[in-house]
Order: sequence, then C-alpha cells, then structure tokens
Amino acid sequence: MAFALNTYMAPDFECTTFENAPDVVMKRVAADGVAPENYHAMSIFPEYFKIDGQWHLAEESRMDCVPVWEDGRVHVREFRHLRVGDLVICGRQETGEEGIYVHPDGFRTAEAMAERFAFRQNRSRETAYSKVYDDLYELLKYERDNGYIVWVMGPAFAFNGYSREAFARVVEGGYAHAVLAGNALATHDLEAAYLGTALGQDVNTQMNMAGGHYNHLDTINKMRESGSIGAFIHKQGIDNGIMHALETRHVPYVLAGSIRDDGPLPGVYGDAYAAQDAMREHVSKATTVICMASMLHSVATGNMTPSFRVLPDGTVRQVYFYCVDIAEFVVNKLVDRGSLASKGIVTNAQDFIGLVAKGLDLL
Amino acid sequence: MAFALNTYMAPDFECTTFENAPDVVMKRVAADGVAPENYHAMSIFPEYFKIDGQWHLAEESRMDCVPVWEDGRVHVREFRHLRVGDLVICGRQETGEEGIYVHPDGFRTAEAMAERFAFRQNRSRETAYSKVYDDLYELLKYERDNGYIVWVMGPAFAFNGYSREAFARVVEGGYAHAVLAGNALATHDLEAAYLGTALGQDVNTQMNMAGGHYNHLDTINKMRESGSIGAFIHKQGIDNGIMHALETRHVPYVLAGSIRDDGPLPGVYGDAYAAQDAMREHVSKATTVICMASMLHSVATGNMTPSFRVLPDGTVRQVYFYCVDIAEFVVNKLVDRGSLASKGIVTNAQDFIGLVAKGLDLL
Amino acid sequence: MAFALNTYMAPDFECTTFENAPDVVMKRVAADGVAPENYHAMSIFPEYFKIDGQWHLAEESRMDCVPVWEDGRVHVREFRHLRVGDLVICGRQETGEEGIYVHPDGFRTAEAMAERFAFRQNRSRETAYSKVYDDLYELLKYERDNGYIVWVMGPAFAFNGYSREAFARVVEGGYAHAVLAGNALATHDLEAAYLGTALGQDVNTQMNMAGGHYNHLDTINKMRESGSIGAFIHKQGIDNGIMHALETRHVPYVLAGSIRDDGPLPGVYGDAYAAQDAMREHVSKATTVICMASMLHSVATGNMTPSFRVLPDGTVRQVYFYCVDIAEFVVNKLVDRGSLASKGIVTNAQDFIGLVAKGLDLL
Amino acid sequence: MAFALNTYMAPDFECTTFENAPDVVMKRVAADGVAPENYHAMSIFPEYFKIDGQWHLAEESRMDCVPVWEDGRVHVREFRHLRVGDLVICGRQETGEEGIYVHPDGFRTAEAMAERFAFRQNRSRETAYSKVYDDLYELLKYERDNGYIVWVMGPAFAFNGYSREAFARVVEGGYAHAVLAGNALATHDLEAAYLGTALGQDVNTQMNMAGGHYNHLDTINKMRESGSIGAFIHKQGIDNGIMHALETRHVPYVLAGSIRDDGPLPGVYGDAYAAQDAMREHVSKATTVICMASMLHSVATGNMTPSFRVLPDGTVRQVYFYCVDIAEFVVNKLVDRGSLASKGIVTNAQDFIGLVAKGLDLL
Repeated sequence: MAFALNTYMAPDFECTTFENAPDVVMKRVAADGVAPENYHAMSIFPEYFKIDGQWHLAEESRMDCVPVWEDGRVHVREFRHLRVGDLVICGRQETGEEGIYVHPDGFRTAEAMAERFAFRQNRSRETAYSKVYDDLYELLKYERDNGYIVWVMGPAFAFNGYSREAFARVVEGGYAHAVLAGNALATHDLEAAYLGTALGQDVNTQMNMAGGHYNHLDTINKMRESGSIGAFIHKQGIDNGIMHALETRHVPYVLAGSIRDDGPLPGVYGDAYAAQDAMREHVSKATTVICMASMLHSVATGNMTPSFRVLPDGTVRQVYFYCVDIAEFVVNKLVDRGSLASKGIVTNAQDFIGLVAKGLDLL
Repeated sequence: MAFALNTYMAPDFECTTFENAPDVVMKRVAADGVAPENYHAMSIFPEYFKIDGQWHLAEESRMDCVPVWEDGRVHVREFRHLRVGDLVICGRQETGEEGIYVHPDGFRTAEAMAERFAFRQNRSRETAYSKVYDDLYELLKYERDNGYIVWVMGPAFAFNGYSREAFARVVEGGYAHAVLAGNALATHDLEAAYLGTALGQDVNTQMNMAGGHYNHLDTINKMRESGSIGAFIHKQGIDNGIMHALETRHVPYVLAGSIRDDGPLPGVYGDAYAAQDAMREHVSKATTVICMASMLHSVATGNMTPSFRVLPDGTVRQVYFYCVDIAEFVVNKLVDRGSLASKGIVTNAQDFIGLVAKGLDLL
Repeated sequence: MAFALNTYMAPDFECTTFENAPDVVMKRVAADGVAPENYHAMSIFPEYFKIDGQWHLAEESRMDCVPVWEDGRVHVREFRHLRVGDLVICGRQETGEEGIYVHPDGFRTAEAMAERFAFRQNRSRETAYSKVYDDLYELLKYERDNGYIVWVMGPAFAFNGYSREAFARVVEGGYAHAVLAGNALATHDLEAAYLGTALGQDVNTQMNMAGGHYNHLDTINKMRESGSIGAFIHKQGIDNGIMHALETRHVPYVLAGSIRDDGPLPGVYGDAYAAQDAMREHVSKATTVICMASMLHSVATGNMTPSFRVLPDGTVRQVYFYCVDIAEFVVNKLVDRGSLASKGIVTNAQDFIGLVAKGLDLL
Repeated sequence: MAFALNTYMAPDFECTTFENAPDVVMKRVAADGVAPENYHAMSIFPEYFKIDGQWHLAEESRMDCVPVWEDGRVHVREFRHLRVGDLVICGRQETGEEGIYVHPDGFRTAEAMAERFAFRQNRSRETAYSKVYDDLYELLKYERDNGYIVWVMGPAFAFNGYSREAFARVVEGGYAHAVLAGNALATHDLEAAYLGTALGQDVNTQMNMAGGHYNHLDTINKMRESGSIGAFIHKQGIDNGIMHALETRHVPYVLAGSIRDDGPLPGVYGDAYAAQDAMREHVSKATTVICMASMLHSVATGNMTPSFRVLPDGTVRQVYFYCVDIAEFVVNKLVDRGSLASKGIVTNAQDFIGLVAKGLDLL
C-alpha cells in the first residue's frame, strides 16, 4: 500500500483554555552557556509558546534544549550555544498554565491510537517484522522524492561485501539525502575499496591476508596524504563502496570523530560538539532517519530528532525514526520515545540493508 | 562457484604405526545403561578401531557415545541404550596405542588448512557473511539432489508472515529433507495458518487482536480434537505455512516436547530421549544441518551431528553444520567444534531465511 | 526495612453487579484431553466463578489451563489432563457477565499503583538494582520461616566454584524449599564435587585438565551405576556443592530432562509433561520463585506460576517472582506479566548468587 | 595467594641472529601527519629497534602508532602527531631481518604457556570466574602501593546507589590512580549526589520522580554555572558518590566528550583527539587497567594500552587489562589481544564493583 502522510491536527487555539492562558515568562541569559532558573526544556513533540497573545510553534525543535525568542521566532538552542542576553522562555507546565503547550497527539488519529495500543510494546528477536519492512519500502519510495532521508550507521556495515554494495545501491537510487557516521565507517569502506579488505580481512571471503593489518593503516595514511576523501577516491581510482557512492552522487555526510579513532581521516570532526552541530543541520531537514548498528551515533541522532518537521509550505508532518540493531537493549532504548513513528528492528544490519536493497528492487 | 565435495583422505593403515598397533580391548556391559571402566567415548570425527587385525570405521558416530562391537560392525550407542552383555570398546588414547585412531584431518587439504588459520575464529555481529551466504546457496543446490538437508528451528520463526512464507518455499523447492523442531513452532505456525495470528498477534501487521490470546489455545485444542496435525490441516483447509508445506511435500519432521509446552499437539514426543532417538534417525542421514533461533534444539542437534557421513557407496564426506542465531553466545557455542564445515551467522533468523529464499530464487 | 505482606482486597460480592451476574455455564469434556467449545482459560490472577449463586476462587491456578468444577471446588487442569465427563467452566468475559470474575487488582494499594507507574517498565543492564537486592534479602528472611521458596536454575551456575558454594550456603541456611533444574545442573555440580571440574574444566582455576572431557561422562556413568544421586553422593563421599546440600538438607528437587541431555542421571524425568506435573507440585506451594540463567526452565516455571497463593488459613497472598539472566530478552519476557510482584535483574547469575549469599550473611 | 610479578625475559641480543641483523632504515616525514612509505606500526608487545648497532626498546608503546627516533630514544607517535622532519623507523618484518624485533613472549614462562593453552579461549556467561575475581583482589592490593590502577567506566555505573557507593569506597581505599570516563558518568553521578536521581529516577528505589527529567538538565546547568565540577561539589555541599571521592582524594580523571552528550560539563574534552592524548598520559603510567560497561571508552583505552610497562628502575613488567561487560561481544573484542594478562568478565558492572568492594573488605 502506497505511503500517505498522516494529517496534523494543530491545537485549537480558539478555545478558552488557550485564550485565557498567560504569555510566557522570559528571562535573559546572564552567563554564556548557562540557562536562567526555571528555563523550559523541549520534548520531541511540537511545542507552542504564547507571546504577545499569539501562539508560536518552535519549528526546529530538539529534545532537552532551550527555547529562545529572537527575531520573532522561537529558536531551540543547546545550552552550550546560549549567549549572554538571549531571551529564554521559562516554565515547566506543559498544558498552557504558563503559556507553554506541548502537543504530543497531533498525528494521532483514532485509528493510529487503537493500533498503538494493539501493538506489542517491546521489540525483540521474536517480534514479527513483515509489516515494518513493507511499510519502510513504501515510505522510502515516497521520501526519495518528497522527503529527506538521513542514514546513520556504525562501522560494522563496511566489513561485508554485500552490505557495502547494497548501501551503495541505496545511495545511487536516490534514497539517501545525508549520511551520519564515524571515522571507522569511512576507513573500513575505503580500505575495502582500495585493498579489498577491512582491518586486513577480505570483505568477501572473510579471509585474513598476510600482513593485512597494515592495510587499515596504509589506507588511512594514504588518505591523509591525499588531503581529503574525495581526492583519495579520485587519485586511487576507487570505483565502489559507500564513500564512493556518496562522493559520486554528491550526498553530504558528516563523519564524527571519537576517542576510538585511528587517523583520523581528513574531514572528520575532531570536536564532538562541532560534529553535533553538523549532524543537527541534516537532522533539521530530515523526514526519515534510519539508524543502523551504532549505539553511539544512533543515540546521538535520536537525541536531536524531533517527532515532527515543518515543511517549507508550513505543513507539519511526522518524522519517521528507525533503529536497527542486533541488541534488544539498543533498539528499545532508541524507539521508546512515545512517538508513533518510531520503529525498531532487532537484526544484523548487514542483512537489513540487503533486504532493503532487494525490497526497493535495487539488487 | 558451484559446490564440490572435498575428498576424504583415509589414514594409511599400511604404515608401521598402524600395523604395530594392538587390537582394541573390549569389555562387556555388566548393568543396563552403564559402560564398563575405561570405555571409549566418541568425538565428532571419523574413528577407526582395530579388531582382529582390521581397522573398522564407526560409520554412524555421535559425540560422547560409546562404540559397541556387534554383528561385525562398530555401532555407536548412547549410555542409556547399553544393554547387559554389549561389547564396549575401551581405551582413551586416540592415536593407535590402544587400537583406536581418531582422524580429525581427513578433509583438510593444505588449502583448507591455510584458509582455516586465515579466518577470524570468533563470529560476531561484525563478521563479514557475504561468502557464507554465497557458499550456502551453492551447497543447498547441490544437497537438494545429492544430500539430505536437516533444518532445526525455534518457534520465533513462526511469528512472522514473511519467514513462514520463505521457509514454506524452501520446503516446496525441495531443499528440506527433514525438520527438527518443538511443539511451539508447529503451534504458532498453525495458529497463523488457522487464525492469522501467533500468540494472538497478527503475523503480518504485528497487531494484537482483541481476545486473541485464546487463538493460541483454541488452535491447540482443535488440533488435539483432530487427532493429528495432518488431520487438522485437512479438516480446516489450511493452505499455507511451514507445517502445511511439510505435510504436503511429505517431508518428515520431529517435534520434541519440552517443559515449556502448552498442549501438546498430537504427535509431539513427550519423552526427551525418545525425541533424541527420532532426531538422530534423521541426523544419521544428514549431509547438511542448519540450526536456527533455538539454543535448545540447536545444541541437542549439534551434540548428535558428527563431522562426516558415509554414503551408501562407501564415500566418506563432510557434514555441513550451520548455526544461525542473534546471540554470539549461541553461535560460538555451536560452531566451535573444530570442524572445517561448521559455520555460524549472527543475525535474526527471520531475515536469514528471507535471504536464503531469495538467494535460491524462491521468492 | 523488614518485609510485610500486602493485604489482599477480595472483590465485594455484595455489590449489585456481582449479585446480578449469572451462574457460569459448564460443559462436559467429550474426548480426553480436549476442552469443550468456549472453554475458559485461566490468567495468572485470582479468578472467581459463580456457581449455584456462590462465588468460588480457583485456589491453585495456572495460566492457560482450564477450570474444572469437581467435588465442590474449582480445579485448574492442563488440557492434557482433561478426562471425558469433566465439567469445564465456559465463557470468556472476565468481569462478571458470564459468572466469571478476574481480579487483577487485589494487591494494588494506591501506593503500589503509584509506585508501579513511577517505575521504568523495561529492565536492562542500566536499571538501578539496589532496592531490588535489598527487598529480596528481606523477602528471603521472611520466606525462610513463613513461605516456600522455589529456586529455578540453569547449568551455568555449576561451572563456577564460588557460585556452587554460595548456593550451597543458601540451601544450608534454610532459604530453599525446592529446586527445579535439569540434568545438566546436577551433572556439572556433581562432576565438580567428584572430580573438581565441570565439562573437564577446573571450576576454581578455569583450567582445562588433560583428558578432562571424560570427567563429564565418567561422572554420569558412575552415577548411573550407583542407581541414584543420593547413593552416588554417599558412596563417593561427596561433601560439597549444590546437590550435596540439597540431599543433606532433604530439600526436594525436580530434574527435568531435555533433548540436550547426556546420560541422563538416575531420577531425571525423561517425560517433559511428567516433569511439568512434578514441577507444578512445588510451584503450587511456592510463595517466592527465583529463576536464574535458564530460559527453558524459567519460562516453563513462569508459565505455571500464578500471582497469588492461598495459604492454609485461607489468606490470599502475593507470589514473588524473580528472573535473573544476562539477557534483557529473557528477563523482560519473564517479568512482563502485569504482576506487581515480578522483578527482573539483568546480570550474570554467578554474581547474583554471590551477592545474595553475602546479603544474607551466609558468606 | 599474594600477587607476584612474572619476570621479564629480554631477548638475548648476544646471539648471532641479532648480531647479524642490520640497523633499521629510517625515513623523514615529508608532510605533517603522514608517515613515509613502509613505516613500521607498533603492536602491543615490547619492540626493539637496532640503531647504530644497539637494540633500543620503545618504552612507551601504543598499538598502530609509529616509532620515531629522537633524542636518542624511540618515541611512539600517533599519525596525527607526526611532524615534517621526524625520523620514522621503517620496515615490516618482525624478527630482526630489518633491525626490528617484536617480543611477544617475554613474560611467558613454561607454566604460563601451559596455562594459556589449558584455558578456554572464549569468555561467556558460562565461564567460571572464581579465580579471576580472586586474582584481581590480590592484584589490586599489590597495585595500590606498587602500581598505577586506571579505571575506565561507562555511565550505567552511576544509575545505581550501591555501585556508586562501592566505587567511591574503592577510590577512598586508594585503589584508583586515575579514572577515564565520559560526560554522562559525571553527570549522572552528580545528579545522584545533588538530587538523588539519575535521569530523574531515584538511584536507590528505582522510582521516577514527577518532573524528574529536569533533574538531569538542572544538574548540568548548575555545574556550568559553577564553572567546574570541583566548584559545584564545594558550593552544593556534595558529600557522596564517584566524582566526590575523586575530587576529595585528588585522583585525576579524564572526561572525554562524545556526540551523545548533553551539556557538556565544564572540564569535559570536546575534542576527541585531545581527549585521547589526555587518556594516554594516564595509560602510559598504568600497570593495571579495568574497563567497565562502556564499549566506546573500553575500546579507546584498549587501543592505547600495551602489554608491558617500563618502571622507573628499568624493570619491564606486565600490564594487566580487564574488561567487564554484560555482552560477550564486547568482552571478547577487548581481551582477544594475545596478551597473557588480559582478562574478561561477562557480567553487570554494578554487581562486579559490589563484589570487588566486598572482596577488598571495603564494604
């Protein structure tokens, strides 16, 4: 069944509760990076703030960040981005008493609500995933042309020949608008493209090459010499894999550094918070986010993904959020967000991406 | 690359070590079910015993069981099957000193040995499985016509619409010669075929039906009323799923009972050791064994699967053993057998069987 | 804080809803082992049935079994125990409409309800277990003298010197009224007591002994020769471990056979359903059940453990149910029962039992 | 049994192989951060380099980094720290042919070698850990006065009252010389000390407080206002927990930032590579490293921990490396290093630290 967006039901601000609600209280930031007492913190849901008698939606939200009134709009800022003088909205009541209204049920049709309660809550290896896969294929077909699909992935993905190829096809098919990953994903994928191995092991046959552990470091060293991933791909004539597909198709990616990294590759964000900012830039546009096989990157992305997006034409729509991991622990941690559009699959991400590529007739 | 059997290199019994070896010592069983002191216990490898100057291979082996000389052949018996007067071969040296020779390297070509040491030992979610899948498809095509494929499976398999369908296709395609499972697999599969749910949850949409928890018990009760799974399928006009495919294609199956069972269904073995005997009957013929998503059934089957099989024409060939599970713990427990032909895949069995069905062009 | 039982609030059968409720419908069993159409199936909660105008509590309940009216009492039978002519109570409404009343909230004080909703639902490696441990120590002290504590355990427990000793202390301290386990638990524990190893590995130093894999089979063989576990312990002068403590303290145990078993040991139930019956005999008396490190035995026991127990003096009290396992999957599967008295701990059972023994000042 | 160091057997450089070995080849770095062709990369083992006819040990090693000859010593540098003109040692033969000798067996007594092969390789939930715990207690007692103990920990640790207390005792007892962790560990621990909760949940009773999700952010905000963790502890009169113990005992700690962070707290390293440098400063002195419940921090630390340490008096000694995690995947990934002194325990870190505190008579 082809995908269709659920309609968003905005709150009815004509009703008396809302009309009687006071304007929000705002306080100025007194020290950089520190919020004033009683600051409000955002949820993943649409939130409205009454200012000068008007209700304003915070359009680009982020959980656990702070609403700031500026230039006639409600901006949502990380604590570390607060600057002296910023006007922070304060108050912790969520149903209008302080001029703040959190709206978790905007997309909840009666049907959706029934469905929700009929579903098993906890995802596990024994959950039936047929419909989750079917829905995902239809969603991706829709989003390719009408949305912004962000893929988040751990390095395991690049150890295997088929999953590298499957994801490259997904990118080439237009199903990826941005990729968020780490130094290791790019390193392993490019080692595979350059020398046929990942950490010295053949990505197709699983055999360890003699002296192959140098392949990893040689790849990094060559890339550092080249000055950029793009230059390395060009210079070495790389013609396959994930990074090649991203570069060729001009799909933007963010590689966030971590303390596990060797290298790092040129272009990797060493600063974790600069990486967050770069990631959020894509997540702010995302309509579907798919996290695979990385607790670190998945939790980081989950933290910054709201349940909704305001499209350029003003439409408020749901953001679909998927978490695919082999550990129930990770999947349940990520999708227990109270959002109808969060889905989890407990499986090996290699097999998941293979099935997705086949489900989209790309393989 | 099409599958080809490795050649078996039997020991060279002409060489002096073997010629000088003594005949084995045998002792008679003095009490039913109890082996005599110093009994020999079998491994998973081919084992030869010198009797009256001749070396005899125990043709149907089973790890941790006891070799018994009877009717001019070496039989391998479980302790519980030993009977007073049985002639048990004794001795624990494995390289001829006591007339016993264990031969672990019969299939190990230089190439295979090199390959072995080049492989990563430990399978995990990060192992590259491309080649394991490719090899499996080729193996299954070969075994369909030339071997005996035994599938071992846990119940999780039947919770999901696609995996039920995929496995039914595998059966219909001729790729299953026997299935070993438990009461729950059959119950869930038949509930799905009869009422569309498993434990009351729709196997396609994952929705819980109102009052659906009765579906499970109603299915069992109806089946008990019918007297057999076959009669139930016939009477209720069941036309899909795993059990339907097995019955329709006359593929034999063993359903072993356990203390977790509701019901049980008619035909389930209540006695664990009778179930073992029934399972071993199929495992004795098996040339490929694939265990999915059940530690209980997988370990039970692993315990009784030797590394080789003697074909009717006398050829000694390898037995391929796969373990597919979402837990590294289970996969590594099962495939750390020292056999070249043991392979593990860490993934959700639902996705595994979907990929296998697609890899065999069945879906 | 010392443990105190929650008071049970029985339904008020004086109120009109109950007074107006009809008597239940009963139908006779027409074929052994098959329930009549529309049979009622039990939950884990107290259930009352109106018969001849009186409400009767099914005193020894078991989920998914069938209420049978006999000798003026409501018995709860497994399907396989139904006999032709048995009077089965029918109906699937649970709030009186058909003379059946399921009472899930009997122990739920306002305080308990608040607590319930304040708790995180999903147990994981990141859950705080301080209070769960503290409460358990107090509960066990109370139950030693006033209850019936049933321990359910997998074999892993016996691989380790300290956990064998810790559990022996628990038994010797009077904190175990029955133990439910399998062939492997007893085998490994007795191999440790007899030869110092489990599966040939030293239980204290973790070292593999040369030829030690025979230790496992030799222990089994000797025990089969002895005719019983008790006779073996006596004959071999075993003086430590779990089975020794159970035999010495005359704590009853049930060893359920499974298809994984070697041997089996004398006294092990080969028939899974006879084993269920033997297990249920203890579970019927249980006031606290603690399941450790065995999905098979834990699920089997969970299936037959109701949320309440009727004491000899007629008091209805809660049954405490704990599941301890290293896998979130197992723990959540077991404790998602809707019962206030179900608790899960995600950890290694070896460490759990060590902490319990220390918490009870036994070690 | 009290702990005693194994003696290090240095290679016998008098023997002809070594005497005939050539001097190493060195090449100069031509671009910052890029190694010359055929650079040598370090292992975790002691490595010797022949320069001007003398063999020099690289005293502070780090796997996958590069040996640089400078000021008459072999330094080991990360690629990113290479500077134009640095003299990099080149060559990939490890047994003298190129003047490079890797010495993996320096600590391997015949006894240790036998022990090694007698041990089960793969650690799992079923491994016997009695001796691992006993040895650890003795090791820690020795290291407190004679070594440098580095603890590496994930945030889960701070969610639980008992484990916070247990670790505080470990610190107060003098058993911690440095701690490596992340923003979340400190945040959760200090929220617990300040407001009694972690992520809004009571760390003792596991109850969620109303509005408690603000506790997390309020703690961070207050700490940012205070300017440092130390100032916050002082100002708010914090008197318990992990960070309090570290500050009070002047135990240094490194908090490495990551893309998952809220805040961050003052003092957290935002730059991953600056964090690596700060971590390595402690790891360079470490004689025992214990990693708990964090794949990110554990792998990062494992990457930079060699198998040996050169003490101020020139003695070469083993470095003990432990990994404690609830996932076999993580434990086996970390301890499969080929080092005799690597040990893994599969358990919940909460219980582990409780047992350690009890084993050291601190609790």
